[in-house]
Amino acid sequence: MKIQGKHYHTIWVDADDPRIILVIDQRKLPFVFETFAMRSADDAFFAIKEMVVRGAPLIGVTAAYGMYLALRQLQNESWEEDLIRVADYLKSSRPTAVNLAFAVDEMLAFVLANKDDAELIEKVLAKAGELKQQEIEFGDRIGEYGLELIEEIYEKKGSSVNILTHCNAGWLACIDWGTATAPIYKAHLKGIPVHVWVDETRPRNQGARLTAYELGEQGVPHKVIPDNAGGHLMQHGMVDMVIVGSDRTTVTGDVANKIGTYLKALAAHDNNVPFYVALPSSTFDWDMNDGVKEIPIEQRAGDEVAEIEGWHDEQIKTVRLIPEKSSVANYGFDVTPARLVSGLISERGICKADKQSILKLYPEKINR
Amino acid sequence: MKIQGKHYHTIWVDADDPRIILVIDQRKLPFVFETFAMRSADDAFFAIKEMVVRGAPLIGVTAAYGMYLALRQLQNESWEEDLIRVADYLKSSRPTAVNLAFAVDEMLAFVLANKDDAELIEKVLAKAGELKQQEIEFGDRIGEYGLELIEEIYEKKGSSVNILTHCNAGWLACIDWGTATAPIYKAHLKGIPVHVWVDETRPRNQGARLTAYELGEQGVPHKVIPDNAGGHLMQHGMVDMVIVGSDRTTVTGDVANKIGTYLKALAAHDNNVPFYVALPSSTFDWDMNDGVKEIPIEQRAGDEVAEIEGWHDEQIKTVRLIPEKSSVANYGFDVTPARLVSGLISERGICKADKQSILKLYPEKINR
Repeated sequence: MKIQGKHYHTIWVDADDPRIILVIDQRKLPFVFETFAMRSADDAFFAIKEMVVRGAPLIGVTAAYGMYLALRQLQNESWEEDLIRVADYLKSSRPTAVNLAFAVDEMLAFVLANKDDAELIEKVLAKAGELKQQEIEFGDRIGEYGLELIEEIYEKKGSSVNILTHCNAGWLACIDWGTATAPIYKAHLKGIPVHVWVDETRPRNQGARLTAYELGEQGVPHKVIPDNAGGHLMQHGMVDMVIVGSDRTTVTGDVANKIGTYLKALAAHDNNVPFYVALPSSTFDWDMNDGVKEIPIEQRAGDEVAEIEGWHDEQIKTVRLIPEKSSVANYGFDVTPARLVSGLISERGICKADKQSILKLYPEKINR
Repeated sequence: MKIQGKHYHTIWVDADDPRIILVIDQRKLPFVFETFAMRSADDAFFAIKEMVVRGAPLIGVTAAYGMYLALRQLQNESWEEDLIRVADYLKSSRPTAVNLAFAVDEMLAFVLANKDDAELIEKVLAKAGELKQQEIEFGDRIGEYGLELIEEIYEKKGSSVNILTHCNAGWLACIDWGTATAPIYKAHLKGIPVHVWVDETRPRNQGARLTAYELGEQGVPHKVIPDNAGGHLMQHGMVDMVIVGSDRTTVTGDVANKIGTYLKALAAHDNNVPFYVALPSSTFDWDMNDGVKEIPIEQRAGDEVAEIEGWHDEQIKTVRLIPEKSSVANYGFDVTPARLVSGLISERGICKADKQSILKLYPEKINR
């Protein structure tokens, strides 16, 4: 999608040096646009851990390139063992995202299967590129399926469709298109009037900082709202649908996503507002049945709640928000039970959030 | 309650000069402790409008003293008409709080009934003091009733009682004790172990700034959380009860309170967590039956969402949170339907959130 009128992906191979993988540094957006160069698995680990990159699909692709960067540097005899260690290391960078492990394991299997190939490194780079291209295609297809839902509402309503989203499941969380934003971009490009309520998404404000930024750069009408506002808007008919992303979705349709998603799902349910989750299939966890009980929820550093970054005097400044005598708790995600989800929008189509409907779209997973 | 070990009220008559009413300047807490001096109705209007003072009970008492300050300054023949205009003016300072109008009307009626009294000004000052004293007593009684609920949970559970609260319905919103915090302070003073989850309460962060501050100054264990976290905590059994305040409560039990309260009520309901609203009876609106449809919801300046204040380099700094191309929406309150409220804690006792139960506690309101 566009930044300052120019088309970008979130991650790409340096045009002059294939030993360098570049990503958009999302820590400084929307205030400063900069790229971050990765030359090693350590850099990839840092980029994921410190949220230079974030969003399940982008984390997966970043880790895939991290495996490629590691392989380039492992010249010793025990490189296979070392690479297995690197794989575990990269998988430990964020605990909740399931497609991080998925991408790392796929890269590792590919390397081991082709370990005697003379052009191994080039092939592994191409493999990471394939995973990247696959995520772009997933976003494109999610966008096309989700577009149908927006069109339906527009046909009934005849005026601008109000869509609420939480956190950033935008193209900045992916490679292009995004997941939750893909249908919005598709609708906007097709000339269907849309207006997006952007939850600011405390504590890290990915909504206010990233979703608002990418919608603004693409020219999509939107308003930033406090995370507290969605219920009121829904009570008063100001939200036509909710679309969010997912960091992990159980085969039964329970959705782990940014903390606060569950509260919006409750409000949508209470006000008969359709609540959709857009996700590439890499986000499914085929082994889990009870999201609330089984999905591990990351606890992050307290500073993320106690302090906030913003723009002041042409600089990014961090200000403290709480009294000296106070401490905080900081859970990264919550789980929205399937019963509150109207449907899942994946690259294979739209389905209900239950095991039978999900497996109907993914029949190859039935007898795993 | 205490600040730095010393006992304070939120509003008091200057000990040396009865023409001056002092309030704690809540715009600078928790970073700086300062008082704000009011010498006129304009000062009182400013204090309410600009949130030097906030919280329904304190707003009411501030407006009452504003009427007293106005009367002191009205020396002309048409003072009665002028005072009626001042009353309307003060009532317009915040649209949602019902006891603002209640306090102003009571003061106006008192003035007009005693207009020929030689000691009118002294009597009006004393009358404002009575309203203040009444709010303190209301907090005290709400605290005693709410304490019973906490004791019940403690007896069953045998360990620290986890209470979630939203915004600041603390003593800083009142005169002393607070409403939602009153039972917490009573329990803490009685030696019952309590731990409070403090919603930061975006956009103005009254939870992070004020509730956390007053709990900390009083020595009550607490943690500040993003407004998004409550649902997750309740799903995992980490909240034993919710207590919030109210800006306006219909006779049918619908509760207008700080934006986001409704979302917490939905989560409490979904997880069988008791959800209580603590309120002095001055907060009841005896004429309204449908809170969602009838209670006017204030829309406030967009800067409150687009920017935030915090502490940086020993100063209060304001930083911008959203991209240049983005705008915001800022609704001050939402309405929690009575069906989500476990009970109301008022100065007359605890009742269900329905018309019959409320009127049973306030029989004098039945045939108004």
